[in-house]
Amino acid sequence: MIEDPIEAVYRVRSTPADVGARAEALLLEQTVELPRTALKSAFVRDRLVGTVLAIDEVGPGDFRVRLAQPAVAAASDPAQLLNILFGNCSLQPDVELEDLRLPGPLVAALGGPRHGIAGLRRLAGVTGRALTASVIKPIGLTVPEMAALCANLALGGLDLIKDDHGLADHAFCPFTERVRACLGAVGDAAQSTGRQTLYVPNLVGTPATVARQAREARELGVRAVMVSPMLLGLPFLNELVRDLGMPVLAHPAFGGALRIGPAPLLGKLFPLYGADAVIFPNAGGRFSFSAETCSAIAAALRNPAAAIAPAMPVPAGGIQVGSLPSVLERYGADAILLVGGSLLDAPDAPTLLSRTRAFVATVKAHFKP
Amino acid sequence: MIEDPIEAVYRVRSTPADVGARAEALLLEQTVELPRTALKSAFVRDRLVGTVLAIDEVGPGDFRVRLAQPAVAAASDPAQLLNILFGNCSLQPDVELEDLRLPGPLVAALGGPRHGIAGLRRLAGVTGRALTASVIKPIGLTVPEMAALCANLALGGLDLIKDDHGLADHAFCPFTERVRACLGAVGDAAQSTGRQTLYVPNLVGTPATVARQAREARELGVRAVMVSPMLLGLPFLNELVRDLGMPVLAHPAFGGALRIGPAPLLGKLFPLYGADAVIFPNAGGRFSFSAETCSAIAAALRNPAAAIAPAMPVPAGGIQVGSLPSVLERYGADAILLVGGSLLDAPDAPTLLSRTRAFVATVKAHFKP
Repeated sequence: MIEDPIEAVYRVRSTPADVGARAEALLLEQTVELPRTALKSAFVRDRLVGTVLAIDEVGPGDFRVRLAQPAVAAASDPAQLLNILFGNCSLQPDVELEDLRLPGPLVAALGGPRHGIAGLRRLAGVTGRALTASVIKPIGLTVPEMAALCANLALGGLDLIKDDHGLADHAFCPFTERVRACLGAVGDAAQSTGRQTLYVPNLVGTPATVARQAREARELGVRAVMVSPMLLGLPFLNELVRDLGMPVLAHPAFGGALRIGPAPLLGKLFPLYGADAVIFPNAGGRFSFSAETCSAIAAALRNPAAAIAPAMPVPAGGIQVGSLPSVLERYGADAILLVGGSLLDAPDAPTLLSRTRAFVATVKAHFKP
Repeated sequence: MIEDPIEAVYRVRSTPADVGARAEALLLEQTVELPRTALKSAFVRDRLVGTVLAIDEVGPGDFRVRLAQPAVAAASDPAQLLNILFGNCSLQPDVELEDLRLPGPLVAALGGPRHGIAGLRRLAGVTGRALTASVIKPIGLTVPEMAALCANLALGGLDLIKDDHGLADHAFCPFTERVRACLGAVGDAAQSTGRQTLYVPNLVGTPATVARQAREARELGVRAVMVSPMLLGLPFLNELVRDLGMPVLAHPAFGGALRIGPAPLLGKLFPLYGADAVIFPNAGGRFSFSAETCSAIAAALRNPAAAIAPAMPVPAGGIQVGSLPSVLERYGADAILLVGGSLLDAPDAPTLLSRTRAFVATVKAHFKP
């Protein structure tokens, strides 16, 4: 029995006959990622394996599965927590994360909103009513055009004016100049309206870029900022707010990244962003990728359409030593074959060693001239 | 005509009668995010609006839409590029990003794999055959247990042994000790096998944590690392590889974040990670969220199940000034009402100003005692 667990609720498409096994598989996938038979450590079995709390049929073939996962697995780390909640199972299309509940210490480690409703109200000077807000856009306006638009909106008496989330540090509208001009615009408007509109610039880029933008914004007098957490990475959001000292508006852009097809995401974007090797679920394993998808990912990595170095495909997940010949045929020489469970499932160390040697030997033999 | 554009290919569910308008809407959504009638700047119309290159029917109700988007919109920024490709439309369930092609300068800015196949082969000392790899897991093993497993796998003659992506800096198996012990294990194994297995530790955490882990790993003698880019944020991957000096394996964990329901993602995770206000598409606008979903998000933000400060709901997208009464009824006082297009669509500045004032006045009047 795990005390004070992470509770994760999933919707799972299954059948009444299969859903029990599916829930058990989901439970293990998100922490130990091995079948129970492969768990040789008592500490692992007792402290790292969670519990299926409930399975409820919501409709035909549609189940709600409630899991309790050990908080210790999350290591009080914002990125690792996402792993526990939806790391691997995000790639299994029969599963959707529906809800979550975190234990107190983990919540405290994340910290939540540093300002929240109260801080935003204080900043805007508004109580007892909804706040009014608008946005300056489109991308492509010059700094004077942005400022004019901002001034006009501020004169309208809005509480808040934010950048469009697509406003980056563009050459035709640089971040620093835009922020300075828009702050000036809301300041001037305040002279005539008697009330200060909050201008909220958009921060976007890599962590170093966003940190620099946050610093500049603060120095210029900005009192709240916007970011797109799914674009920047949720863990970075959590790091950013630790020292930011002002409210953060979160934009949902890229919140639907799942629907990027696996070939463009893993085969193109990952290497474009710098990955030298990309792990992906091999066809026939416990994920849903077809043989065609796997071949497409491998081909995209090896023969990049863009002018970048080829990257190494790393098929993984459910590769059995016995199925190696077909895997070797599929991927050829430019691949890292990642075999996990079917080695680690060995009952003892000598068996593991011999299986591993067999794996290695099979691969070497396949490529012998 | 835009030269050297970003090409983005989407699969779109539509009807033959509607798909032309749908493609046009998608084109505008990803850059200017306004209807053409709202584009008053010639520079915006000429340089920031892309082109629908082709629409092909793939099957009944299933279309392939090929767009050319202006590279200048991406500002040579890794995060902003994701915005252009799949920022807003990731939230529209009738759209999937199917493929992409970037112009040369943008590819060069990203840089791609710094080591790739050639570097990994050099590092592993393997030519002409596939590389062999396995993984140390499960989470919960102690450092000596990890090292013993690693030694055993290395003795098997693998080319590469990687951490499970769920191995973080756990108290029961700290990062530094694990890496040191596993490096020792593969080193010892090399004494007896005569060949050096590559040990690849997993880096996970916020950017600062991952940067520290990368530094420690390098000092300990690690020659390749693994990260989960969707967990850490793709832009951070791109920043990390600039100075890393060794190959990066990318793990697909969290690559399916889209299938997190909107209420848990936007209503729970975003504020848990520190967002003080969360923008989400209001029901009835151009996104798919139902009124129930919107109410659930707002309720979750305001009355967090976890012990964190309440955060401000920011309904946005398609709110018309004329529809304000129903929006005000739905969200009540604790909300930031974000109105964009229906203000910005105004033909001139005075109209914009008067519309804005009407918006502000309507909201104020609604909350008058």
